[in-house]
Amino acid sequence: MFKKVVIFGVGLIGGSFALALRRAGQAAHIVGVGRSLASLERARELGIIDAIATDAAAAVTGADLILVAAPVAQTEAILASIKPHLEARAIVTDAGSTKSDVVAAARKAMGERIAQFVPAHPIAGREKHGPEAALAELYEGKKVVITALPENSESDVETVAAAWRACGAIIHRLSPQEHDAVFASVSHLPHVLAFALVDDIAAKPHAGTLFQYAASGFRDFTRIAASSPEMWRDITLANRDALLTEVDAYLVQLQGIRAMIADSDGAGLEKIYANAQHARQQWAAAIEAAERKAN
Amino acid sequence: MFKKVVIFGVGLIGGSFALALRRAGQAAHIVGVGRSLASLERARELGIIDAIATDAAAAVTGADLILVAAPVAQTEAILASIKPHLEARAIVTDAGSTKSDVVAAARKAMGERIAQFVPAHPIAGREKHGPEAALAELYEGKKVVITALPENSESDVETVAAAWRACGAIIHRLSPQEHDAVFASVSHLPHVLAFALVDDIAAKPHAGTLFQYAASGFRDFTRIAASSPEMWRDITLANRDALLTEVDAYLVQLQGIRAMIADSDGAGLEKIYANAQHARQQWAAAIEAAERKAN
Repeated sequence: MFKKVVIFGVGLIGGSFALALRRAGQAAHIVGVGRSLASLERARELGIIDAIATDAAAAVTGADLILVAAPVAQTEAILASIKPHLEARAIVTDAGSTKSDVVAAARKAMGERIAQFVPAHPIAGREKHGPEAALAELYEGKKVVITALPENSESDVETVAAAWRACGAIIHRLSPQEHDAVFASVSHLPHVLAFALVDDIAAKPHAGTLFQYAASGFRDFTRIAASSPEMWRDITLANRDALLTEVDAYLVQLQGIRAMIADSDGAGLEKIYANAQHARQQWAAAIEAAERKAN
Repeated sequence: MFKKVVIFGVGLIGGSFALALRRAGQAAHIVGVGRSLASLERARELGIIDAIATDAAAAVTGADLILVAAPVAQTEAILASIKPHLEARAIVTDAGSTKSDVVAAARKAMGERIAQFVPAHPIAGREKHGPEAALAELYEGKKVVITALPENSESDVETVAAAWRACGAIIHRLSPQEHDAVFASVSHLPHVLAFALVDDIAAKPHAGTLFQYAASGFRDFTRIAASSPEMWRDITLANRDALLTEVDAYLVQLQGIRAMIADSDGAGLEKIYANAQHARQQWAAAIEAAERKAN
């Protein structure tokens, strides 16, 4: 059991980690830190955290586990603020959606104490935000990708993995670069494509008429375009190189399809659509089987 | 009340129309026609149709309303087969997802009887297909777009509109060209983009790893990529010109975003994402309000 867990950013992600770890009996005392005192007070009222810390030194003194669940762009400043006060045995981890940039920020901020930072990314979310959205069961059956550093001790990596397992998560391991390439492809690119479509339609002079006829296919395709612009601006910039690779491959693909449409190449189009349908159906079947197993 | 309604293609769309029209007390006798006798027999067992016709002449003799709900590519052949046998007062309508090509096919097949064809497109669907998927309530609160021809009498258009209203639908009117431009933008382009993404990922050497980390955003974005390849090949070709216009506009948009990512232009990206988020939220709120009103 952790004696003192500190959470920077007690919103959906950090708050759900606190609730799940406490439910598992793995956290004796949980302290929240954040930019909004009102939000921290709400988290305390909701029983997510036991106490609020207003400075980094007080927060991390005596702490054995620290989770940074704030927007990724704040990672370096948070790590720099806690580094002078960290216990020698404390482990710091994070929940950022991108990993190469977080590791670079951590190396700058943590310096010779970089071994104490174990980067991770829980693959879970909801459309709601803030401490009120936090759920003890958010991570059940979900993946957490740990992108361990060469400097990390295997026992520290295992401590972080065990904390997430106690929350119900399944641990995967990738390098930070692998992680970023994978998520550029299956998460960041789709977000960019959905934002691009809705902005494209909204900018047309007859946008009102167009939106009037948008139906359930449009609703599902564009759900991720309702995501936070600030968060996705940061993710886009943080994962710039991997995302550019994916956008370029997609542009080539779409230009190829455009040529098939112009040529009325029904066989070529049907082949792409059938490949996609088959892969989508296989994927959905695999995911559903995994979810049945987890529940 | 219609004395005899004939439905070409008794699947989800045609079967749901039959069930809804009968429930509304608007159809005395419903006859099904189709390529699969087994499917028609199932429709009769389910009480969707009263009788099966195996040739066009027998089907349309004495019929006052005929709905073509078969794949769009079959429209011309079906209309040509029924034209010689049509009663003078019979009205023919359809349920095709594209309208300019259907109108062109109808003009060829119907010739001097084109006034009897009132083109329409019900905006409703489910992921299931065939007569077993048919639901009397499928069209409740849904839009049906009638793209009337200059040759249609206003009373025939009103008869088709009234039949759909009896099914619970809300009637909209557009020209065939307006219809195709609207659906190229809000339906056909998103389908192409989703098929393109899944095919793009599936073609990568490490596709298995990528799919393993795809989560709920990917699931929603790609749901429409599980649609029928044949049907979407036909829609793509049938609405080729309007769709090319939309694909080209989207390519320009995506190349612009690519340049912003390459330039690390956070302000430009955030503006696009925020426009999209705002438009998506406004759209969702309007749709939800309309659905509450309909229910």
